[in-house]
Amino acid sequence: MQTQIGKLEDLKRKKGIDAFLMTSPAAIKYFSGYFFYFEHGPSPFHLMPAALVMAPGDHNSLLIADNEIGQAQGIYSDISFKPYLSYTYNGALDPAREFLLQLSAIIKVQQLENTCIGIEANTFPAVIENYLKTTFPRIRLKDIGREIYGLRAIKTREEIDMIRASAALCDTGQTAVVSLAKPGMTELELFNLVRTEIETAAGTRIPLMADFVGGRATASGGGLPGNKIIQSGELILSDLTPCLNGYWGDSCSTIAIDEPTVAQKKTFALVHESLYIGIDAIRPGIQALELDGLMRKHTGGYPHHTGHGVGVEYHEGPRIVPHNRTKLVPGMVIALEPAIYTEDYGIRLEHLVVVTEDGCEMLTRFEHQLIK
Amino acid sequence: MQTQIGKLEDLKRKKGIDAFLMTSPAAIKYFSGYFFYFEHGPSPFHLMPAALVMAPGDHNSLLIADNEIGQAQGIYSDISFKPYLSYTYNGALDPAREFLLQLSAIIKVQQLENTCIGIEANTFPAVIENYLKTTFPRIRLKDIGREIYGLRAIKTREEIDMIRASAALCDTGQTAVVSLAKPGMTELELFNLVRTEIETAAGTRIPLMADFVGGRATASGGGLPGNKIIQSGELILSDLTPCLNGYWGDSCSTIAIDEPTVAQKKTFALVHESLYIGIDAIRPGIQALELDGLMRKHTGGYPHHTGHGVGVEYHEGPRIVPHNRTKLVPGMVIALEPAIYTEDYGIRLEHLVVVTEDGCEMLTRFEHQLIK
Repeated sequence: MQTQIGKLEDLKRKKGIDAFLMTSPAAIKYFSGYFFYFEHGPSPFHLMPAALVMAPGDHNSLLIADNEIGQAQGIYSDISFKPYLSYTYNGALDPAREFLLQLSAIIKVQQLENTCIGIEANTFPAVIENYLKTTFPRIRLKDIGREIYGLRAIKTREEIDMIRASAALCDTGQTAVVSLAKPGMTELELFNLVRTEIETAAGTRIPLMADFVGGRATASGGGLPGNKIIQSGELILSDLTPCLNGYWGDSCSTIAIDEPTVAQKKTFALVHESLYIGIDAIRPGIQALELDGLMRKHTGGYPHHTGHGVGVEYHEGPRIVPHNRTKLVPGMVIALEPAIYTEDYGIRLEHLVVVTEDGCEMLTRFEHQLIK
Repeated sequence: MQTQIGKLEDLKRKKGIDAFLMTSPAAIKYFSGYFFYFEHGPSPFHLMPAALVMAPGDHNSLLIADNEIGQAQGIYSDISFKPYLSYTYNGALDPAREFLLQLSAIIKVQQLENTCIGIEANTFPAVIENYLKTTFPRIRLKDIGREIYGLRAIKTREEIDMIRASAALCDTGQTAVVSLAKPGMTELELFNLVRTEIETAAGTRIPLMADFVGGRATASGGGLPGNKIIQSGELILSDLTPCLNGYWGDSCSTIAIDEPTVAQKKTFALVHESLYIGIDAIRPGIQALELDGLMRKHTGGYPHHTGHGVGVEYHEGPRIVPHNRTKLVPGMVIALEPAIYTEDYGIRLEHLVVVTEDGCEMLTRFEHQLIK
């Protein structure tokens, strides 16, 4: 089985690259296994939580803020830690200086002073680039952000297992929505009960992106839960996107509180058919735009993508959109989310699948049901 | 009353700066009022959620990803929006290009082609710096990150009101911990009930940094809540740090489930005394290190700061640490958090205050109590 770092060999040859300095959270997770939490925003004690240097001869160094090491679980065995001084109470803070000192040490030990280093230009900090230009003027930097994005679309078996674990949290959450929703609850009350079920299954707090609204707000496709009371006769749209150990799951259900209207039942049936038209159509070789077209046509359209890849980012390649000629291949993990939005309500249904040799395998397993 | 942008006039004169291009979430919030959520990590659809250009003549432009505009509430009235194309399903994504196109337009309209622009070097993206060097070679960039950090330490009345609202959420949370904690609950169960109370009071999901652990884990000062069952006779350490509209609150309590031991009562009393020694000592002119010394000595010490400023970041200046000679001045908002950690348990107590002309005013108002 090809590992993530192993996938870089072709890229090195084609682009004349000797080493890599990864700075995006997505690429750091992808190549090193290291994941960090974002909820609190950037830490005032870091230049960045971590960066990853991949040098020739499998010398792979995770340059990590020392106060993040306690959270560093699941790092791949071929990665060595290079901590830099971050939080301290016994002196002034200068995280950029500390980061650059440690980076400089790695460059010297790995003899990268006269190499071409692949970077992700869109996330590369100027403070690092300026330091390299001044201190190591013979280093050349080459942007390989798009290539890394492309590599990530096809998952290894281990990655699929990680996503499967997050998909199981989607199932837990969607099952909880059906069993716990009652008229008279607020969106926040129900959401918090559902999140408790998900976090209990995960065993810890986890990032959970969610559209979670009831009633008329479903017509716009979602939003954050608030103090709106969910009334009898309304729909709840629940798009749950949890992240376990740095890999995301994705799922969306729409359920009725009490009896749905005839129109709602018809709309639900159309969206449900569209979803399964997509699931049935997925196979190696189909183009993303074909899949998009089949599903979009069946519902009459929606103002967003039909689907997207899922992995170390909640949206990644391949995008299932009208202009994308990418052909699906085994190992791609794809969320499909057709919808219909009327003036009064919206229904969106989403499942997560992995492309196999002859079709696809469902990663989320819950059954969509309009009626509790 | 001096506004945040008004505070830049001195800096312009001293440093010969004509305009500013702010890229840190903290400075963007501070000067524009715009706050964005982080829980999900960087968006795959953005170069960055927003950047802020402050040009001469009060021409202040928030360069914002167009799919973030729906969340853009609370922006100060002197800021104009300049959206750049971000999420789209009808074409390929190139957020860096779209961002730079819009930045270029602002530079031309505001006639900044031959100016000195103040930036925060530690968060400045290389992709922007390289573009400016190539396209506008007469622009000079000057790092004023430390100066902005310094400005932020003294709050306006409006900022104090924003922090007061987050401090009220701390009170809500700490009161809920006392009323809801029962032996037999898991940390996650209790935490989720407490979070529900906080989010209901806020009316929405909010970022909530928290140490929330029971039993022996309190000895290390905290951690994420998990599935550990809280037992009779254990302590719960609850450090709740919520963020409402981009301004943080901060608070910590430690409570006993059932009857505490004599040693725990004595420890609690010492930490509580230390906290109020600090609160009583705060006045304009006292140095941060004096305050640190008084409080640290009383407990016998702890392996972290005694306190820190709070505002658009959860930790900011002034740091209440042994080496900091900064003198407190009215308008500084400071969290004080003395502690004692033994082999078996830890007790940390924290309140948030604002320095006034003759002492301080409490922003968190809950009462610390070891016994429910």
